[in-house]
Amino acid sequence: MLDFNFQNETKIIFGKNSFDDLSKEISKWGRKVLLVYGGNSIKKNGIYDKVVAQLDKNQLIFEEISGVKPNPRLDLVLEGIDKARKSDIDFILAVGGGSVIDTAKAIAMGAKCNKDIWSCFSGEVFENEVLPLGTILTIPAAGSESSTTTVITNQDKGLKRAFSTEELRPKFAILNPETTFTLPQKQTIAGAIDIMAHVFERYFTNTENVDLTDRLCEGLLKILIKNIPIVLEEPENYHARAEIMWAGTLAHNGLLGTGREEDWGSHMIAHEISAQYDITHGFTLSIIFPAWMKYVYKTNTNRFAQFANRVWNIEIDLDNLDRTAMEGIFETEKFFKQIGAPTRLRDLNIHDEHLENMSHKCTMNGSVGNFIKLHQGDVNKIFKLAL
Amino acid sequence: MLDFNFQNETKIIFGKNSFDDLSKEISKWGRKVLLVYGGNSIKKNGIYDKVVAQLDKNQLIFEEISGVKPNPRLDLVLEGIDKARKSDIDFILAVGGGSVIDTAKAIAMGAKCNKDIWSCFSGEVFENEVLPLGTILTIPAAGSESSTTTVITNQDKGLKRAFSTEELRPKFAILNPETTFTLPQKQTIAGAIDIMAHVFERYFTNTENVDLTDRLCEGLLKILIKNIPIVLEEPENYHARAEIMWAGTLAHNGLLGTGREEDWGSHMIAHEISAQYDITHGFTLSIIFPAWMKYVYKTNTNRFAQFANRVWNIEIDLDNLDRTAMEGIFETEKFFKQIGAPTRLRDLNIHDEHLENMSHKCTMNGSVGNFIKLHQGDVNKIFKLAL
Repeated sequence: MLDFNFQNETKIIFGKNSFDDLSKEISKWGRKVLLVYGGNSIKKNGIYDKVVAQLDKNQLIFEEISGVKPNPRLDLVLEGIDKARKSDIDFILAVGGGSVIDTAKAIAMGAKCNKDIWSCFSGEVFENEVLPLGTILTIPAAGSESSTTTVITNQDKGLKRAFSTEELRPKFAILNPETTFTLPQKQTIAGAIDIMAHVFERYFTNTENVDLTDRLCEGLLKILIKNIPIVLEEPENYHARAEIMWAGTLAHNGLLGTGREEDWGSHMIAHEISAQYDITHGFTLSIIFPAWMKYVYKTNTNRFAQFANRVWNIEIDLDNLDRTAMEGIFETEKFFKQIGAPTRLRDLNIHDEHLENMSHKCTMNGSVGNFIKLHQGDVNKIFKLAL
Repeated sequence: MLDFNFQNETKIIFGKNSFDDLSKEISKWGRKVLLVYGGNSIKKNGIYDKVVAQLDKNQLIFEEISGVKPNPRLDLVLEGIDKARKSDIDFILAVGGGSVIDTAKAIAMGAKCNKDIWSCFSGEVFENEVLPLGTILTIPAAGSESSTTTVITNQDKGLKRAFSTEELRPKFAILNPETTFTLPQKQTIAGAIDIMAHVFERYFTNTENVDLTDRLCEGLLKILIKNIPIVLEEPENYHARAEIMWAGTLAHNGLLGTGREEDWGSHMIAHEISAQYDITHGFTLSIIFPAWMKYVYKTNTNRFAQFANRVWNIEIDLDNLDRTAMEGIFETEKFFKQIGAPTRLRDLNIHDEHLENMSHKCTMNGSVGNFIKLHQGDVNKIFKLAL
């Protein structure tokens, strides 16, 4: 186990009645709120009205930024920063999934910062004050509701980049599983894959002696594998939705990575697909992860065999650990297919015309990943395995 | 899954170099420190000198309260409160195990409170400011290093009682597994049992649809069952010590109880043994838990069968679930014996002379536990099963 620091101050407010404390929580931080959301879905399903009623209850004043799209874009962030400054906003409330929350975080970063905010996503130091923000999660996926990270796409440059700092952790995350009942199947599936991917990025490590976090990762994966098919059959199954929602937060709140080197190569590779083709994040992961696993598993066959055994209940074949490892990878790919996710680039009609360039962009700042450090040639081979 | 709120602000600083930031962390809160510790062990093993060197480095001023004993006592708490007031202390630093930390917490409660602090342990409302405190853990056991709780013994009244409030969460917890290398075997064993017991108190619930926290609980128990025998054979096995130490914190930081009704009946019963006979807390739990399990398992045989299967790898006998459940209980008791813990009152030369009175005291404020609500007669039967 490696040395680590871990602190997660986000207050989780979970359950059917979790909206009730919204205005009380916001009032700790100020009175002028910037409400950030996506499209019409929160108006159709009544969440918008509930939020406004809560804000009105305590006479909180609010402005809005709406229209956040998947793979959230820098231009809307800049618009939000402008509005936050002009309206002297105290607090940002994100109502939505990861794209909405990431947009809100980037606005929170920029509101009190005079430099070009994109420069921080390109590696420049960020030392400014961050506006406090809170979240009402409607799509369990990104884990952004209690994480330190925001991922933004610069559409002019064709780049999708992440930025992390402890100050970006939301002050609270309201998680009401009922808000996910009306999610389109596609978003439920893509979100669930994103959650599994967040566990994978931590689980596949060469750090030794990480028994405890291994078990936590395996536990999360097992409950996802059980509950994802249930919610696809029964979208209003509260308890299965609740398991997935809480797992989504825990998968990415920092706990599962304590004491271990994390990987994140697959996320970096997958981001290139989104940047090039504007594909839903989760579906880039269901394509890249099986290919990545096949490319890297021989680096640490034991770990992949343990994964096959503990997560997929495959008996360990001590005479052929490679086979056990590969069975776990095939089960993963099969599961993604079963729940209706693409597992090959061709499933999304993507062929090899841009792969070389995408591999170049992915590694332009150096290698990606830690399980194996992947250079341009490796990334290109992974893309080809995913064709 | 039940609705819940969860927030744990304690900063975990884990590993071999975790002492390095001590004075920086304290300096966020003030300059006058009250150092609370037990006996000579931290002087013998060099921890005291390291702490003092860190405090000196940033010119922090400190007073001391030492001599904390297991089942920490109210009189030392009162002495500490007096010293904290007279010296106008800003911050309390606990260096030790649960008894030391609980003493520090009770001092932190009392330093700015004018009423009799024991009254809060007897159910009176506590609404005062709490002094900030930090912890350097040397015994993985109580989980007090990031919990909301303190447990104090009023020796005059023969009562051991707990008090909880979010304000009691330490600001930081420094967890260096090396500090546990020199623990006497008895303390290692008793501490490990306390950790397992904290998981049991959450695991054995009648709340349904708690897949995720079930898996987290089972994961923790599995790594404890693996690593406890290792550290008893190899006291300086860093990695096994690290697994146990991190498990000890996670077992009691609130996470495992999210969304489920917790029990705590066994702890209440076990406290009576400590109050009457001044027995190490962990050893009262290794005696009471097997008896409690035998007394209650038929209330929810499925849960006990799941425990047997997932934690102890016992095959489920669908024709006789009771048998499967009982096998899990026997395995638990056998494990406690194997690691050298008492599992019967007679192992500590305790017989039935005070059991009636202890059962009365345990339930004088009402029934204890939630899995089954236990009244005086039930508690007495559990004591008898434990004879």
